[in-house]
Amino acid sequence: MSIVERLAKLREEMAKKGIDFYIVPTSDFHQTEYVGEHFKARTFITGFTGSAGTAIITTTEARLWVDGRYFIQAAAQLEGSTVELMKMGEPGVPKIVEYLEQEFPEGGTLGFDGRVIGMKEGQDYEKIVNAKNGNIIYEYDLIDLIWEDRPALSTEPVFGLDVKYAGETVASKLARIREEMKKQGATAHVLTTLDDICWTFNFRGNDIEFFPLVLSYAIITMDKADLYIDEAKFSSELKAELEKDGVVFQPYNNIYEDIKHVSEDEVLMIDPVRLNYAIYNNIPENVKKVEVRNPEIIFKAVKNEVEIENIRKAQIKDSVAHVRFMKWLKENVGKMTITEMSASDKLDELRVEMGNFIRPSFGPISSYGAHCAMCHYSSTPETNVELKEGELFLTDTGAGFYEGSTDITRTYALGEVPQFMKDHFTLVAMSNLRLANAKFMKGCTGVNLDILARAPFWERGLNYNHGTGHGVGYLLSIHEGPAAFRWQHRADETDVLEEGMLLTDEPGIYIEGSHGVRLENELLVREGETNEYGTFMYLETVTFVPMDLDAINPEMMTEEDKKLLNNYHKEVFEKVSPYLNEEEKEWLKKYTRAI
Amino acid sequence: MSIVERLAKLREEMAKKGIDFYIVPTSDFHQTEYVGEHFKARTFITGFTGSAGTAIITTTEARLWVDGRYFIQAAAQLEGSTVELMKMGEPGVPKIVEYLEQEFPEGGTLGFDGRVIGMKEGQDYEKIVNAKNGNIIYEYDLIDLIWEDRPALSTEPVFGLDVKYAGETVASKLARIREEMKKQGATAHVLTTLDDICWTFNFRGNDIEFFPLVLSYAIITMDKADLYIDEAKFSSELKAELEKDGVVFQPYNNIYEDIKHVSEDEVLMIDPVRLNYAIYNNIPENVKKVEVRNPEIIFKAVKNEVEIENIRKAQIKDSVAHVRFMKWLKENVGKMTITEMSASDKLDELRVEMGNFIRPSFGPISSYGAHCAMCHYSSTPETNVELKEGELFLTDTGAGFYEGSTDITRTYALGEVPQFMKDHFTLVAMSNLRLANAKFMKGCTGVNLDILARAPFWERGLNYNHGTGHGVGYLLSIHEGPAAFRWQHRADETDVLEEGMLLTDEPGIYIEGSHGVRLENELLVREGETNEYGTFMYLETVTFVPMDLDAINPEMMTEEDKKLLNNYHKEVFEKVSPYLNEEEKEWLKKYTRAI
Repeated sequence: MSIVERLAKLREEMAKKGIDFYIVPTSDFHQTEYVGEHFKARTFITGFTGSAGTAIITTTEARLWVDGRYFIQAAAQLEGSTVELMKMGEPGVPKIVEYLEQEFPEGGTLGFDGRVIGMKEGQDYEKIVNAKNGNIIYEYDLIDLIWEDRPALSTEPVFGLDVKYAGETVASKLARIREEMKKQGATAHVLTTLDDICWTFNFRGNDIEFFPLVLSYAIITMDKADLYIDEAKFSSELKAELEKDGVVFQPYNNIYEDIKHVSEDEVLMIDPVRLNYAIYNNIPENVKKVEVRNPEIIFKAVKNEVEIENIRKAQIKDSVAHVRFMKWLKENVGKMTITEMSASDKLDELRVEMGNFIRPSFGPISSYGAHCAMCHYSSTPETNVELKEGELFLTDTGAGFYEGSTDITRTYALGEVPQFMKDHFTLVAMSNLRLANAKFMKGCTGVNLDILARAPFWERGLNYNHGTGHGVGYLLSIHEGPAAFRWQHRADETDVLEEGMLLTDEPGIYIEGSHGVRLENELLVREGETNEYGTFMYLETVTFVPMDLDAINPEMMTEEDKKLLNNYHKEVFEKVSPYLNEEEKEWLKKYTRAI
Repeated sequence: MSIVERLAKLREEMAKKGIDFYIVPTSDFHQTEYVGEHFKARTFITGFTGSAGTAIITTTEARLWVDGRYFIQAAAQLEGSTVELMKMGEPGVPKIVEYLEQEFPEGGTLGFDGRVIGMKEGQDYEKIVNAKNGNIIYEYDLIDLIWEDRPALSTEPVFGLDVKYAGETVASKLARIREEMKKQGATAHVLTTLDDICWTFNFRGNDIEFFPLVLSYAIITMDKADLYIDEAKFSSELKAELEKDGVVFQPYNNIYEDIKHVSEDEVLMIDPVRLNYAIYNNIPENVKKVEVRNPEIIFKAVKNEVEIENIRKAQIKDSVAHVRFMKWLKENVGKMTITEMSASDKLDELRVEMGNFIRPSFGPISSYGAHCAMCHYSSTPETNVELKEGELFLTDTGAGFYEGSTDITRTYALGEVPQFMKDHFTLVAMSNLRLANAKFMKGCTGVNLDILARAPFWERGLNYNHGTGHGVGYLLSIHEGPAAFRWQHRADETDVLEEGMLLTDEPGIYIEGSHGVRLENELLVREGETNEYGTFMYLETVTFVPMDLDAINPEMMTEEDKKLLNNYHKEVFEKVSPYLNEEEKEWLKKYTRAI
C-alpha cells in the first residue's frame, strides 16, 4: 500500500468519525523518543523513517514537521507521498501550534490517539480547539484500523541490572523518590516514562529497537510500587527480588482503569510533560495533583561513582574497537569490497570481541560521501554503497555494554581527500576540542558553553542544525535530559551541568550532495577546584579514538587548537595502546603523532 | 545622628505602628535604579552609599543585601553600624524572600512604603506574610518621620530633545505604543518608569543625580496621554508642543487618586515588575488588567539610525577626551599633584571641550591602587589619594552628550607597574576583545556570549562578580535592559541581541587590598550576512581609547589575541587622530603601535 493509498484510507476513517485534522506523532504510550515497531504509526502514514517528527493529516492535505537533523532525509523520503515537509525552525515555517491556530477550522474536530500525545501537548491543542469552538476526539487509534500487518507489542524478556553496574539498589532509589514525594506533599507518584522506570527498578529489556527499555507504567506510593508490566517477561528470581522491594505486578494495560479509581485522599505527583493525555484525563477530577518534573530525571542523569567507573571502562572498550576499525578501514579501503553496511557490521564485530556487549545502543549511521551530509542517515540495502578512496566515511554508532552505553562518531578520510573536505574536518575537530576543554563556573548550563563549539563555525558564516551534545543514559535512552549543549534555551534540556553528568560533544558540518563531517566524544562533567570565586567545573573526555590526521589541515588551526589536538592524541595513545598488539600500537603511534 | 541612633529612632516608629520587619529598598516611586537625593532612604538608614541594596530592619537586627559590585565598599561603610552585610549570591547567604520565609514571625507585621516597592515584589512579600498569618502595612514612609533634614523633591527644569537627537517624534512613538496596546487588547497604558516616559515624550530633566530623568507618571489612552508631572518644570513652548501631541498635564501626585476612579470599561496595560505596589493596590478590583512588560523597554533599547549615528559621534568625542587625558596622565604623574578627584575633574574638563556636553552620565569611579579593587568606588574628600608611580589608576566615567550617553572604563599603568598587575591587565584586555569580536547567530542572547569574555578568567580559576556588560540608555539610565552580557539567566536582561542595541563590554579583576583592572568599551549590535544557515550578527565597537600597552604582557596572549589588540589599536588611531594635533598624534601612534 503506497503512502497515498494509506492517506486515503486514513481520511476515510477520519470521515467516519467526523475528524477534520488528525495528528500522528512519533511516540509510544510513554513519550519514548525512539519507539518499538508496533508504534511506528508516523512512519507508516508518511514513509519518513527518522526518529522524530509529527504528521498532521487533514481532509485535503498532509504535513510532516521534522527538525534540522532530518531536513535532507525527510525531503527524499516524502517524495511522491503528497506529504508536505515542514522544516522546524526555518524562517516562515509555522510551529505545529501556530499551524493549528491558523488553519484549524472553526467548529472543527481534532483527532489523535490520547495515549501517544503528552498531557501538556494535548492541553495546548485543547486551548486552540476550544478557542475555535471545536472538539477533540482522542479515544481512537485510527492508524490501527488501517495498518493491516501491524507488529504486535513486544514480548521480549527482562533482565536485572546488577548493583555492580547500577551502583545503587532499588530500595535506595525508591527511598530517594519517596523523599522527593514527601517534599512535594504527594502520596503517590505516577511514572510512565520507560527509562525512569527501568532506572528505578534496575532492570532492562528489549521492547524498543536498540533501547533496552521495557513497556511499563508504575504507581509508587509510600509503602509499595505497582508495576504495570507484562509479568511473563520476568524470571521468577527477578520477580521475587523486586517483590522484596515492595513491587506489586499488575497487567500492563490496567493502569488506564486503575487510575480512574484512585482514592480522593491521594495526592498524585505527575509530570505534565511526560504523562500521556489519556491517563491524565482518566484521573478523577477531585484527586489532587502535584505537577512536577519526574525526580528520576535528575537522579539518573547524575551518574554515581560505580556508573562512572563503568562508563570509563565501556568507553575504553569502544575506543579500542574503534581504533582497530580505523586501522582496518585505512588499510583495506580500495583493496577489498567494503560498503556502508559491511563497515558498520565490522565495527560491531570488533565491539563484540571486547566482551559484555549487549547490543548496539542505537541505529547505526554509517555513511559514505554525500550520504554523510544527512545527519541521521541510515543505510539500507537500497542506499548501501561501496566505500572508495577520495571521499569521507562517517560512522556514528554506539554500543550497549553492561558497563554503559556509548555513542561515538568518527569521520575518516578514505585515501587522499580534497582540501575543502580537510578544512571542514579540521573545523569540526577544533570545535569539538574547544568545548571538551572548557573550564567553567558551577551553575553554568549547556547554553553558556555551546558557543565554544560554534564560535569557529560562526566566525566563518557556518553552522550546524543540531545541538552540540546531549545527555547519555546508562543502558537507557541514548538521548537523555535534562542537560545538553545547545545555544537555544529548551525547557527540559537546560539544567545546570552537574558533577557526574555524561554528555556528548558532536559538532558537524553537512554540505548537501557533497560531504559531511561529525566528530563525537563523550564528556563527563566534573567538579574542580573551589576558591574565593566559587566552584569551577571541567569536562573529562572519556572517548579515545584518533581524529583522523589524514584529514587535518594544521594551517587552519591556532597554536592552542594544535595543543588541544596533540594533548588529546597523547591521551588516546596512553589509554588505548595497552590493549593493542605491537603492530596495532605502531599504527596508533602514527595516527596520534603530534602535529 | 549616627546610624545606630537612626536605627533606634526607626524602631521607635516601627513599635508605634506595630511593625516587626521594615523594608527599605533603594528606590524612588518609579523603580529607578539610581535615585534622587530625596529618595536616599536606604543610605540614610544604613550609611551604605552604593547604588543598589535593600535593608531590612527588625526589632532586634538590621541587614543589608548588596550584590558583588559592592561587597568591599559595603563592608567598609557598614562598620560600626550594627547593620549586617548580606552578600547576594554567595554560598549560604539567603535571598531576601528566603530570609523572610525563615525569619519572619508567625502573625507578624511587615512594613514598607508601598510607593518604593514594586507590585510584583510586594506580592511576593504578601505570599510569605499570608502564609504566616501576618499582615502588611504599606501606607507609611517611616524614614520620612525620622529624617529631619530630608532633601525636597527636585524642581529642576525640563528640556526637549530635538528629533535630530531622538530620531523619532513623540507622535510616532505614541503610535507604536498604541499599536502594542491594541495587540494586547488594552485601552490604557499606565507608565511609571522615568526612562520610558522621557523616551516616549522626548524630554529630559535633572531630577536624579547624573540621570537626566524627570519625576513623572503617564496614562496613555488611544486619544490622549495624561502626564503626571510638575508643570512648572516646562517652558511654555515645550508644553505647547507636547499638548499638540495630545499630552494633558496633571499634578505629579494625582495619579494615586485618579487611578482609583478608572472606569470599569478600561483595560489597563501595566508592567507588574515596574508598577509600584501602592498604585497597583489603588486600581479598582473590577478593572481589567493586562500584565506585560512595558513595550517602551524594547523600543528604546533598539536604537534608531539617527541615535546610532549620534552615539558613534558621542563615543568619538569621549574617546578623544580620553586619549588627551591618558597622555596628560602619563606625562604628568609623579611630576605634579594629581589625585583621584582631580583626575576625574580633568577628564570632565576635556569632555566639556568636545562640545554639546550636558553632564556626566553617572557618578565617576576614579580609583587608585587598592581602591581599584572596589568595583563601584566613589572617591570622597576623605578617601581621595594622590596618584603615584608604580600603581594602577582606574577611571570608569561617562558623559551625557546630546549625541547620547557614554560609559567608558580604562585602567592605566602609572610608571612601571609590577608584573602581576600587567598579567591581570592583559587578561582583562583579552577578555574584552574576545567578546567584542564575537560573531553569532541571530537569536543569541548575552547568556550565550558571556563565556567568550569569561573563558580566559575561568581557565585560570578566576572570575569577576558582575555582569560582563549592560545595555546603555540614550540620555536615560546608564544601565538599561532588556539585554546584557551575563552568564546567569536574569529575567528582564536576557532578551535576544537585536540590531541597534547598545551594550557595554567591561570585564574586570579585583584583588582586595591590592589592585583592580577593568576595561570597558561600548558595542553596537549589528546584523551581518544572511545565508542558508540564517542571519549572523556581530558587534561594532564604538569606543576608541588605547588599552595601555605599558601594562600589556604579550607573552600571555595568543597570536589571535594579539591580532585583536593590534586591529583595535589601528582603528583607535584611525578614528581619533583626525581630532588631534601633531604632538598628540605622535603620542597616540606610540600607544597604538602593533605588538
